[in-house]
Amino acid sequence: MMTRDPAGFAPDIKELLDAGGADEIRRFLGDFQPHDIARHIEFLDPEDIARVIVILGDPLGPDAFQKLDTETQIEVLRVMPRKDCVHIIEEMDPDERTDLIKAMPGEEADRVLPLIAQAQRNEIARLIKYEEGTAGSIMTTEYAAVGAEMTVREALDELRRIAPDRETIYNVFVLDSDRRLVGAISLKDLFVAPLHAKVRDVMKADIEGLHVGADVEEVAHYMRDYDLVSSAVVDDDNRLVGIVTIDDVVDILEQETTEDIYHYGAAGEYLRYLPTNPFRLAGQRMIWLVVLVAVGFLSGMVLHRYEALITSMFALAIFIPVINASGGNAGTQASTVVIRGLATGEITVSDWLKVFGKELLVGLTVGVVVAVVAGLRGYFVENSLGIALTVGCAMVGVVTIATMLGALLPLVFKKINLDPAVVSGPLIASVLDVVALLIYLEIARFILKV
Amino acid sequence: MMTRDPAGFAPDIKELLDAGGADEIRRFLGDFQPHDIARHIEFLDPEDIARVIVILGDPLGPDAFQKLDTETQIEVLRVMPRKDCVHIIEEMDPDERTDLIKAMPGEEADRVLPLIAQAQRNEIARLIKYEEGTAGSIMTTEYAAVGAEMTVREALDELRRIAPDRETIYNVFVLDSDRRLVGAISLKDLFVAPLHAKVRDVMKADIEGLHVGADVEEVAHYMRDYDLVSSAVVDDDNRLVGIVTIDDVVDILEQETTEDIYHYGAAGEYLRYLPTNPFRLAGQRMIWLVVLVAVGFLSGMVLHRYEALITSMFALAIFIPVINASGGNAGTQASTVVIRGLATGEITVSDWLKVFGKELLVGLTVGVVVAVVAGLRGYFVENSLGIALTVGCAMVGVVTIATMLGALLPLVFKKINLDPAVVSGPLIASVLDVVALLIYLEIARFILKV
Repeated sequence: MMTRDPAGFAPDIKELLDAGGADEIRRFLGDFQPHDIARHIEFLDPEDIARVIVILGDPLGPDAFQKLDTETQIEVLRVMPRKDCVHIIEEMDPDERTDLIKAMPGEEADRVLPLIAQAQRNEIARLIKYEEGTAGSIMTTEYAAVGAEMTVREALDELRRIAPDRETIYNVFVLDSDRRLVGAISLKDLFVAPLHAKVRDVMKADIEGLHVGADVEEVAHYMRDYDLVSSAVVDDDNRLVGIVTIDDVVDILEQETTEDIYHYGAAGEYLRYLPTNPFRLAGQRMIWLVVLVAVGFLSGMVLHRYEALITSMFALAIFIPVINASGGNAGTQASTVVIRGLATGEITVSDWLKVFGKELLVGLTVGVVVAVVAGLRGYFVENSLGIALTVGCAMVGVVTIATMLGALLPLVFKKINLDPAVVSGPLIASVLDVVALLIYLEIARFILKV
Repeated sequence: MMTRDPAGFAPDIKELLDAGGADEIRRFLGDFQPHDIARHIEFLDPEDIARVIVILGDPLGPDAFQKLDTETQIEVLRVMPRKDCVHIIEEMDPDERTDLIKAMPGEEADRVLPLIAQAQRNEIARLIKYEEGTAGSIMTTEYAAVGAEMTVREALDELRRIAPDRETIYNVFVLDSDRRLVGAISLKDLFVAPLHAKVRDVMKADIEGLHVGADVEEVAHYMRDYDLVSSAVVDDDNRLVGIVTIDDVVDILEQETTEDIYHYGAAGEYLRYLPTNPFRLAGQRMIWLVVLVAVGFLSGMVLHRYEALITSMFALAIFIPVINASGGNAGTQASTVVIRGLATGEITVSDWLKVFGKELLVGLTVGVVVAVVAGLRGYFVENSLGIALTVGCAMVGVVTIATMLGALLPLVFKKINLDPAVVSGPLIASVLDVVALLIYLEIARFILKV
């Protein structure tokens, strides 16, 4: 069940399509889950994907369509008969549908939107106004809600009636007559409650909803910390406007983590790897490499300035790579820990003083140990106490400063509302190269009196 | 609701405890969720944590205890009266309980185990044998199952009866008379099914369970891809032995990602940041830094070998930092993308040929662009066509090789069943320093004929 080789299937599907075997395609793909079908067909031309979706029919065709990535969805809709387009868009979950419409070029959205049912169009208009990255942008409006004054039996009957149209009915939200959120009850608890009790008396009161403008990462941490399967989203007046479900949160956590990791590795914005043209991938990475080359030129300029010192005592040059690398590595270690801590919520900006104190101690400890290792090599291999002292002192200074910078820069970035992961390992390493050279060569000049 | 300052509360709780204010503590903490209580009290001494847990009583005390990290749990149990220990352990979820017992020192486990109810002891014995990192190690045995031959009404009655003891009843598993998994039905579908229908006729048949030995990362991807809230876990005979729930999966995905990021940043094994002693953090990072210093010495040896060349033409030295850094950075970019792709399942080892082709093109493209930038500087600033050519050629070679190594090494590691994230950015950068120096200086010798 775990072994799936999506690309390997594409040629077979292509053959079946060319032979006109609609029944065979239904037989071949009908037993798969929507996600797997999407992975099987995404390598085909948009025309062929459109044909497979139409052949699969309801509900599998639209479900599989929903699991394609947005770019592919748009390409497929572009070549699909208009009535099929409209049907598929209508069948989508409201949050996914809104994402798709948002990503469509204006004229294409204008082509399909007027044909979509009025109720769904209103819903799109309502959902589309929430900013990317807020609870509103990922919530669905297919939630289950009951009135506080209903009996448990009435509530269960209501749920039975609305269940087929709802994404989940396992967290049931309880509203007063103004649609204000007054409580919640899990289907499980409703299920074991006495049938004649009032919902108000068996529900969990003082439930807090997430604000519609809350940041998705906060939403994700909130649901993770409280083990929630779904959470209510409310407006400024505490009126229920939607719910966020755990499957969206899993996707968001993973997507945000991937973006963080890409930034941190200086690999640019995330693009799906296998389907993306290598030159586009190269473009993403090139920008950063050129920036880092420019920073690297600064190191060259430092070396230039100390040319006389280095050529007169070449043993100094021998230690440049190891001092540079240690600075870069110590900085990367510290920033890795802090950036990840910020992402999981384990560290917040208000912890900066604790981070400062901790990293100062870590930097000094690690710096001294590495300095001793490098200094010993300076003493025994280069036979020079002066070199040994220079290398040792420089190492302590460079590693400590690198550790502090690596730990504190992400906090500064977070504080001024920038993505802390933009303080990438390569950027820290390149900047530290310059700093490390300056420290090392100045110490050399001081100790060796050259 | 989002603003939580756990440590800030600890002194207040401490004061209340010292004043003997059990009622105040109950009033103060009683409205919080278990997760928040754990975050509020984890900074206290184990003795005080134990007192708060006992004061809170059922169900909040044991629930909050379960949200402490395992190390703290063990410390708290060590200072708690034995009967409270036993009660709290009995109240835990089976999977969390098994994790705790596994982590306890042998003599302490022996002290409490005999006092725990027989049924729970048997369960621990059953769960404890599953290896860390398998579906068996994270599953719970509190699942909801019904017989295939029951009517929908009988099934609903059965669920109503068992619901209070079950972690989730929203995915109901259907078993034949040998307890073999024959299907599943969501509570939602069961709920809208005709009451007199047989479960067998309304369930989703040919459900596949996860094997009890499946890797947790595979489990997480499987549930993510199929939007599952819980999934069945079966033994070799397809007998249902437990279920895995989405909240565990969210935790695992995050934990595995954190471990990957730590390895990748050469920051050692993950330790909770704020509560961990800085010298322990330093110890984790030191090991890698010393290894990387040793690799750095190789770069020093290379420089030694080419001393005559460099001192006779110092302009060459000016470009060493930028060439080294570009190699390290290009390698980091490629390995970032591939390691993350392997973690999310977007790239598999069988894609190696595609990765090879793509990264060869990416490496060459990026290499040529960076080479032109560096070469132009060589030509105009150093006024030497020879230097410009040397730097340009070396840059293309180094960036291409770095990109290929960065992309393929993680695949090789994965292939031989090692953690691909151990190919850390710093390690790749340090190894590439040596390779880059050799390439650069050999090309210089060839082109400049010195």
